[in-house]
Amino acid sequence: MARTAIIGSGFIGRAWAISFARAGHDVALWDREPEAAPAARGYIAGVLGDLAGNDLLNGADPATVLARITPVADLGDALAGVAHVQENTPENLDIKRAVFAELDALAPPEAVLASSTSAILPSAFTEALPGRARCLVVHPINPPYLIPAAEVVPAPWTDPAVVERTRAFLVAAGHAPLVMQRELDGFIMNRMQGALLEEAFRLVDEGYATAEDVDIGIREGLALRWSFMGPFETIDLNAPGGVRDYVIRYQSIYSNLFPQMQHRADWAGPVLDRVEADRRARLPEADLGGRQVWRDRRLMALAAHKRRTDKEFGK
Amino acid sequence: MARTAIIGSGFIGRAWAISFARAGHDVALWDREPEAAPAARGYIAGVLGDLAGNDLLNGADPATVLARITPVADLGDALAGVAHVQENTPENLDIKRAVFAELDALAPPEAVLASSTSAILPSAFTEALPGRARCLVVHPINPPYLIPAAEVVPAPWTDPAVVERTRAFLVAAGHAPLVMQRELDGFIMNRMQGALLEEAFRLVDEGYATAEDVDIGIREGLALRWSFMGPFETIDLNAPGGVRDYVIRYQSIYSNLFPQMQHRADWAGPVLDRVEADRRARLPEADLGGRQVWRDRRLMALAAHKRRTDKEFGK
Repeated sequence: MARTAIIGSGFIGRAWAISFARAGHDVALWDREPEAAPAARGYIAGVLGDLAGNDLLNGADPATVLARITPVADLGDALAGVAHVQENTPENLDIKRAVFAELDALAPPEAVLASSTSAILPSAFTEALPGRARCLVVHPINPPYLIPAAEVVPAPWTDPAVVERTRAFLVAAGHAPLVMQRELDGFIMNRMQGALLEEAFRLVDEGYATAEDVDIGIREGLALRWSFMGPFETIDLNAPGGVRDYVIRYQSIYSNLFPQMQHRADWAGPVLDRVEADRRARLPEADLGGRQVWRDRRLMALAAHKRRTDKEFGK
Repeated sequence: MARTAIIGSGFIGRAWAISFARAGHDVALWDREPEAAPAARGYIAGVLGDLAGNDLLNGADPATVLARITPVADLGDALAGVAHVQENTPENLDIKRAVFAELDALAPPEAVLASSTSAILPSAFTEALPGRARCLVVHPINPPYLIPAAEVVPAPWTDPAVVERTRAFLVAAGHAPLVMQRELDGFIMNRMQGALLEEAFRLVDEGYATAEDVDIGIREGLALRWSFMGPFETIDLNAPGGVRDYVIRYQSIYSNLFPQMQHRADWAGPVLDRVEADRRARLPEADLGGRQVWRDRRLMALAAHKRRTDKEFGK
């Protein structure tokens, strides 16, 4: 097992720490705020108990996993001997540039330097670094200890061996990496989420559906198949001759819809009042925090279900 | 419980028959081909056993549910005394017009006449009918006995009381209806699926991702939360202050992506060769049928999981 460092111990950093420690790695947890990393470790202890209760710790004891995570006050100490560094500082280009310059100066030359950024291309903050060939983005969906997908995004100068090492590191930790050939705004997942949300906001804006109708159509409809197959396997199984047969039969329906999707609804315009009114009628603002706990419990139960059915029926 | 009729006993018709009979209704199963309805009943018997094994028959005995389904050779006999008619003939406007004229002439005047069409607006085949006020679309996702969502789409002349009666009928049968205020090409679900697929095909066409990368990003990523929350609740919980806070923080990311989504990849063009090659490498054409059986078993297990977790954690 390797030594790893988590840089920035907020919500994303602490979630990565759980994933790495569960995989057997030692994790140095560093944060610019001296109290933040020890506080994060307390939060992590609670999550590990929940994970053990859902059989999501690979049979390990929560205390054993927790013991692999060590808050470290000095950045140089945190980076000593590491093979993988996962950076989780604020989504600000100047901060990313400054942090990566520090990481590149202090980490062992063979360590991979990965950023969790969702919105900044890796080329934007690694170009000037002597060690830019070992830098890339590894973008999770939160929380990564429950959601396997993670996007691996190289800059034009990232060494392909670094991409491969990162892919293997993620797979060994139970992740499902999407390895991009080259960087692109929004990567893959936020582009797909954005495309779906654009149509969802348009439908509500134009009065065809409520926000709840959209959520029903996904959570009681489309996402059931998507949650174990994805959209391409779904259509591959939705025509007798597979995906080619599906495209021949149905593309004209979709190409007729496309011209109707060429305008944006301003998400912050009048549609937002309607979406927010619908959401707040179902979930008052004071209950948002409690509902996030509910979401994570349901995600845990779903992750455990997927593991069981993967074993029983195949993936 | 009501008397219902299924018109057209192919894959969609037989699936509705299961859903209606499970809800306690008597189902007359009619098909223009004399052998089709009796054959469908044999298929249904097998599915009912699987559903019982997954505790998805509301505690009923499969034989009791099967006994509610009767193949009927004569259309007039099939429609005698029915409260709800569900039409499932081929997706062809001339056929829909002819069938609805027959149904309107033969069904009791108070019966609701619903079409399962996914691609034809209800106004296109009901305008000339004396009973057009009782006609509408009820569009399922297959198979409706496992996927609760169903779209209720009125024509401009559909009586609101008919829409409400249909909504209540579906809810009582365990469905989650999306009631549209007015008709629109693609309804709600196929528009959202289409928007997502457009971006998926673009990403593969332009070499940023493989079909498998897209499927991983959805099935191991985005669709996990969507499968119990939908996209609006997902973003509502993804910013401390709820959906308004999310839009204020992140809309600029999505509005920057939007101009990059204004061109279509021709799904049947070179991208289809790549998507098909990826799919066939993972699933040979000869295994498509077996994989459809796998899909339905996983859907059953997921439906059972969702019922359990809805009870344990709330919906």
